[in-house]
Amino acid sequence: MRRDNISNNVIRRLPRYVRKLDDLAAHGVTRISSGELGRQMGLTPSQIRQDFSYFGEFGQQGYGYNVELLRDEIAAILGTKRGFSVIVVGVGNLGHALLENFDFAGNGFTVVGAFDIDPALIGTELDGQCIIDGNTLPVFLRENHVDIAVLTVSRAEARRVAKIIAEGGVRAIWNFTNEEIAPSVPDTVVENIHFSDSLLCLSYYLAEKIDAEESGGKA
Amino acid sequence: MRRDNISNNVIRRLPRYVRKLDDLAAHGVTRISSGELGRQMGLTPSQIRQDFSYFGEFGQQGYGYNVELLRDEIAAILGTKRGFSVIVVGVGNLGHALLENFDFAGNGFTVVGAFDIDPALIGTELDGQCIIDGNTLPVFLRENHVDIAVLTVSRAEARRVAKIIAEGGVRAIWNFTNEEIAPSVPDTVVENIHFSDSLLCLSYYLAEKIDAEESGGKA
Repeated sequence: MRRDNISNNVIRRLPRYVRKLDDLAAHGVTRISSGELGRQMGLTPSQIRQDFSYFGEFGQQGYGYNVELLRDEIAAILGTKRGFSVIVVGVGNLGHALLENFDFAGNGFTVVGAFDIDPALIGTELDGQCIIDGNTLPVFLRENHVDIAVLTVSRAEARRVAKIIAEGGVRAIWNFTNEEIAPSVPDTVVENIHFSDSLLCLSYYLAEKIDAEESGGKA
Repeated sequence: MRRDNISNNVIRRLPRYVRKLDDLAAHGVTRISSGELGRQMGLTPSQIRQDFSYFGEFGQQGYGYNVELLRDEIAAILGTKRGFSVIVVGVGNLGHALLENFDFAGNGFTVVGAFDIDPALIGTELDGQCIIDGNTLPVFLRENHVDIAVLTVSRAEARRVAKIIAEGGVRAIWNFTNEEIAPSVPDTVVENIHFSDSLLCLSYYLAEKIDAEESGGKA
């Protein structure tokens, strides 16, 4: 698989393809043309063909894409067939919501531990996970291979805990804390979830719609 | 303010600028060149100048950008000075986490109500919000102007509740349910948070790093 020089924009579109193809499969669609896929996703057919060309040939001329096959290929490219193991560090409301509602298994990930320092939580069970004392995290990481840590501690604790995670050999952190942790863990892959980015975009589109309506047009 | 033909890519970068400029201001930086801003954000100076050119002139030749002024201008473009009002619909773990931890006020939004149908929650207080019976939402929306609804109900309830929100005159929905609600509310601005998109990108970058290490290179 060629990975060189694939732009971040392409990579960031890949999960959207997976979602769309899942949705098509769930509706009984077995194959789709790049034209139709593009129409449904707001992309041009040539953009779609070019995105996929980075990873080899998925389509057949005149036939279109096999939905299930394409979905599996893209999921594989995204690493979801590697059996990455996940821990959740911080089981406040957000960690709790993720453990309870986020489909780690369906996305190809295995949760192997959940940690918190709240004595009221330690030892309780949540979605099949027994919550482990966060103070034992370094020990756990010495004894268990973990690929990805979900960081859902408080913002004030973010950098300190991120360092513990990285020093324990975890190479990727999914960061929900809104704290810039990357500088503290330079060899770790960090992916930040910034809720505000999404709300501010929503706000922009709403403002645009209101302006268009007030000027007599239609958004 | 010109809004025509601004690409979604530009719009989606604007919140990142706000975050970066907030961060710079917090560190006492009062002005910055497009070159330095670009270096810190992984963008080229010309890309930055072009992004800002859509909205008028912020910079001064040879002086750079005034950090605070630029931050305020971009925030205004994003609609955060319009005093948009927000309700949170669904106060499970995720709604709870957002009410407790997300800085609506700091981002320019005013929470005016939180709703749930769980009798154990109704009437309790959370971060200054008294949780209101979700069944009274249509009445609330007749009596109160609401700009944005945060949708944090269960996935099974998403479309039904989204319709109630839209029929109540709310024109924007921040959708956390992972259900495709846009077709049910065609005149409403919908912004989806897809946690899986972010995790799959993290997974990609981790897989890439592992592959690079195994082939003897360095990611």
